[in-house]
Amino acid sequence: MPTDDLQPHSPRAESNKRETLERLLTAAKRTFAEKGLAGARMEDIARQAGVTKQLVYHYYGSKESLFTTVLDDSSRRIMDELVALNVEHLPPQQALLTLLDCTFEQYMNDPQLGALALEGIRFHESAHDCQVNSFSDQSPALKAKFASLLQRGISEGIFRANVDARFLLATSALLMSGGFTNHYTLSVLVGFDTRSTEGMKIWREHAANFILAAIIKPS
Amino acid sequence: MPTDDLQPHSPRAESNKRETLERLLTAAKRTFAEKGLAGARMEDIARQAGVTKQLVYHYYGSKESLFTTVLDDSSRRIMDELVALNVEHLPPQQALLTLLDCTFEQYMNDPQLGALALEGIRFHESAHDCQVNSFSDQSPALKAKFASLLQRGISEGIFRANVDARFLLATSALLMSGGFTNHYTLSVLVGFDTRSTEGMKIWREHAANFILAAIIKPS
Repeated sequence: MPTDDLQPHSPRAESNKRETLERLLTAAKRTFAEKGLAGARMEDIARQAGVTKQLVYHYYGSKESLFTTVLDDSSRRIMDELVALNVEHLPPQQALLTLLDCTFEQYMNDPQLGALALEGIRFHESAHDCQVNSFSDQSPALKAKFASLLQRGISEGIFRANVDARFLLATSALLMSGGFTNHYTLSVLVGFDTRSTEGMKIWREHAANFILAAIIKPS
Repeated sequence: MPTDDLQPHSPRAESNKRETLERLLTAAKRTFAEKGLAGARMEDIARQAGVTKQLVYHYYGSKESLFTTVLDDSSRRIMDELVALNVEHLPPQQALLTLLDCTFEQYMNDPQLGALALEGIRFHESAHDCQVNSFSDQSPALKAKFASLLQRGISEGIFRANVDARFLLATSALLMSGGFTNHYTLSVLVGFDTRSTEGMKIWREHAANFILAAIIKPS
């Protein structure tokens, strides 16, 4: 029986358990981002977190289950932040730019996120059961946010009338994260490293300008 | 010594060898697309191709080397087709649409390509040596094609003057292939399966229209 579970009801034991789980998820995230799901070893994750492999299995049951927890944890943070972003008081164009910037910065500030997202896409390709997760669970709220912002811009005559919120959201996610999730392909095509400091700046500006150019109504 | 190598100089043996290599690459491509590089087993590839595992190692040396051959083979076909596409006689907007359609159809007509591209991106993330391959080798020719097309459209007053060919190429590749390479994420965000027959049609139309809207000069 792992030490953390000896006194399950004492506040100290609860706090220890929380800290252990946090260390475990941090180590798992780093390992999955670096090695991928197939290449990650539970022993390595356990060692990095300073626990036994048995404890990892005790808490998560399997490597796949630990991976979906890590994925879900990252998705929840990302979606929560975007949904909570206070842009409703801003002019529509500024509001959209703020959302695009936030998406970009989520990847820029978390160097593991691009690789993890890529691994998540790969995982969902082979997973036959598409169970509900934080990403699918929260996407309606984010769609509603984009729809309301878009509607505001259309009625003010700033955005074209034929823009659909779901497509704008999907296209924005793809373009703003592209330099991270499709790093190799994009870097070869644009001719610079999209993850270098200068490269990130250039791709970010291009992606945001491209999206605005596509939806802003010609004056 | 494998049978194929018994009479290396006879025409019959050469033809057998070519056929064997083709069967091997077909089996490898399917397996890598389905299982990923880490999950693919050389035994399975050999069995599907009807050869021994020893023969696969004899020809390719390692699983990574077989994978890069498969990747390079697909990249070469894709890039060759795009570079050779005869669009120079078409009006700029039509020429661009033809290139976008071709990119989309390459993924649509080869159901393994999306997963393979994803695995290729993942592979290049962890590979420290970025050796030259068909993709990087041929990207200058494709950039030149986009640049010439764009220049034609700008001088005819059809495209905005501030569009850069490399960014247009990278953005087009990302958006046209997105429903295949980023299938799960995009499907959740748009609310339909981007790989279903109807879903492909809708995403294709959206992506092409979005790109054109971003670069066409308002009249």
